Amino acid sequence: MEQRSLDQGVTAAQGFEAGAVACGIKEVSSKLDLAVLLSIGPATVAGVFTQNLAAAAPVKLTRERVRAGKASAIVVNSGNANACTGSQGYDDAKRMARAVAERFSLPEAGVLVCSTGVIGVPMPMDRVIDGIGRVALAPEGGDEFAHAIMTTDTRMKTCCVERSVGDAIVRIGGAAKGSGMIHPNMATLLGFITTDARVSPAFLQATLRSAADRSFNMISVDGDTSTNDTLLVLANGAAGGSEIDFGGAGADDFAGALAEVCTDLAKQLVQDGEGARTLIEIRVQGARDDADARRAARVISASNLVKTAVFGGDPNWGRVICAAGYSGAALEVDRATLWLGDVCLFRAGVGLPYSREFASELLRRPRTSFTLDLGLGEGAAVAWTCDMSYDYVRINGEYTT
Amino acid sequence: MEQRSLDQGVTAAQGFEAGAVACGIKEVSSKLDLAVLLSIGPATVAGVFTQNLAAAAPVKLTRERVRAGKASAIVVNSGNANACTGSQGYDDAKRMARAVAERFSLPEAGVLVCSTGVIGVPMPMDRVIDGIGRVALAPEGGDEFAHAIMTTDTRMKTCCVERSVGDAIVRIGGAAKGSGMIHPNMATLLGFITTDARVSPAFLQATLRSAADRSFNMISVDGDTSTNDTLLVLANGAAGGSEIDFGGAGADDFAGALAEVCTDLAKQLVQDGEGARTLIEIRVQGARDDADARRAARVISASNLVKTAVFGGDPNWGRVICAAGYSGAALEVDRATLWLGDVCLFRAGVGLPYSREFASELLRRPRTSFTLDLGLGEGAAVAWTCDMSYDYVRINGEYTT
Repeated sequence: MEQRSLDQGVTAAQGFEAGAVACGIKEVSSKLDLAVLLSIGPATVAGVFTQNLAAAAPVKLTRERVRAGKASAIVVNSGNANACTGSQGYDDAKRMARAVAERFSLPEAGVLVCSTGVIGVPMPMDRVIDGIGRVALAPEGGDEFAHAIMTTDTRMKTCCVERSVGDAIVRIGGAAKGSGMIHPNMATLLGFITTDARVSPAFLQATLRSAADRSFNMISVDGDTSTNDTLLVLANGAAGGSEIDFGGAGADDFAGALAEVCTDLAKQLVQDGEGARTLIEIRVQGARDDADARRAARVISASNLVKTAVFGGDPNWGRVICAAGYSGAALEVDRATLWLGDVCLFRAGVGLPYSREFASELLRRPRTSFTLDLGLGEGAAVAWTCDMSYDYVRINGEYTT
Repeated sequence: MEQRSLDQGVTAAQGFEAGAVACGIKEVSSKLDLAVLLSIGPATVAGVFTQNLAAAAPVKLTRERVRAGKASAIVVNSGNANACTGSQGYDDAKRMARAVAERFSLPEAGVLVCSTGVIGVPMPMDRVIDGIGRVALAPEGGDEFAHAIMTTDTRMKTCCVERSVGDAIVRIGGAAKGSGMIHPNMATLLGFITTDARVSPAFLQATLRSAADRSFNMISVDGDTSTNDTLLVLANGAAGGSEIDFGGAGADDFAGALAEVCTDLAKQLVQDGEGARTLIEIRVQGARDDADARRAARVISASNLVKTAVFGGDPNWGRVICAAGYSGAALEVDRATLWLGDVCLFRAGVGLPYSREFASELLRRPRTSFTLDLGLGEGAAVAWTCDMSYDYVRINGEYTT
């Protein structure tokens, strides 16, 4: 078996290749903006997609093709979302897939398409087709792929784990992009996971959905759910072993490892949130049930006032309780307890004395956490967000201009 | 009948007096932070309140007392929300009411209490009680009242109209405060309306609710619903005339005038939104029904990405369509049309050519508007928001520090 580096994200698992080119979709023409990921031999595929009713053309196409359960390649471009582009946009997405199929001799229906970037601008198809004609694939192409899918991201996000699952040693790797327009409601970004495990299609879809619900669906940068969010997983079976399926050997191990990769990538996304300095973990426990805990954690994590307070190093914990109060989750203020890190700020309906200086320092660390115990039951959930800084406004005020 | 200026907001109508003092609740001890509004003779009262489950102590007290349908005075402090302050907070709110009742010889149950400011800090009751002992009321006190209720507001918000309603000439005046933590979900601010009209309690409550739903509940600064939001109306009948009631003479005129005052104040709030330069009107029409139109208008108006785009003078209209797409309203992209001012940007699923320079100039005006026609029905709604600037982050990063 060939030796591959664990660092290579989507090409860390056996039987995957990737590559990217700069073809001028982005304004800065030297930036990578078109990438291809290939499985050597068709892979089982699963996906979760944005629920935005203005879903982009490539989302519509890829959603249809994922239903077939098999795919061989994914072509991704950054710099243009191919959203709000009408029937021309859909034709363009299909043409991208066709060009990849022709170049790499693949069945066209097995090529998936993802786009990210500005909304409402027709795809520059001449450049895209030219780019597809030039892209070269390699087992070391994972980093290049992860770079090419970036838009306002300041760094690439990749991840890989190797685990003994059932009777095989398998790898699960991934790459993701996104640092704005990120909010918990389905996929919320572009994410690509590859694994050399052999997995049944139904189990792969169920496991991906569950992993996404605990990771990508629990992060928020700005409350906006994009038109293009897509999370795909390809499982090509190159590691051998028995097929992993519901209740079978290795099922739990595979699900756990996939969730680990998704959570790692999700946290990387928030840490690189537009203008962010601090990763904020919002832990809610003692909720009436898990659904309530998710509601509270997600609403707190989406609050501009919580996010700006952390940016200002301001332990203004009332904003956390306030957000819980309008989250839709059951709340009895007198039974709630709130901690910043290990410092208890609020209990039995009133604020407690604490060191403002130390609390402020906690908020200025690269990672900080609030834990809210609602005192009502056993429900628990964790969400992640980042602070909101001047740079968030700058980046989003200047995005297309 | 005494002559009163229409400029005086809550004391423009006959039979109302107001006054304010600086008593040191705010850090800057020279700033007005405690105000009293008095009706000469008990007034019919109606109110709408925050739906936040962490509602502040004064909200709980005032909500109970408004149910009785009659009130004589309102005491308001700024600088401290008296929220998340436990049973002590509730006792403090009652003590504020009692002090006002004693000073002005009123029945205690007819005194309402509102607070706004930082959450989780006990009320400095010595200062508050001292302040209540010093406040002097006058028919010209409306401006002072409007100033004293401000927190991060940069200017006071008042409004008054005079109308022939039924068989009387009546005035409806108001004052409001709030420039952050404002989001459509019930009252969303502190707002005080006074009128010398004679109005039945049930009609007053129904009319206030309806007016709030078209005004204060259609504005958003930051998506956060406060713990303290309260909108109150006092109708003391000092103008004489027959009682206005459902279906009676003047009912529609009164409802229209009340809605006008509420809408005027609501727009003033958004225009003074934290860090705001531009008032953005979001008009949604052609929706499946009015509820859908409200959903779309409110979600678009709460989108950070729309708000930062306007701040940047960036006609990135895809963000408007995107927000409509995740609003929960029915949307078929191919049937939607979007205008910025009079400039059509998007129709039949695709963007139209337009002058970027002119569009950018439209976004930098003091008022701008997007109109989205969903092409699906007759539903319509209007929402208002403001752009999101660096100052929003600065103000909210520094609020308590």
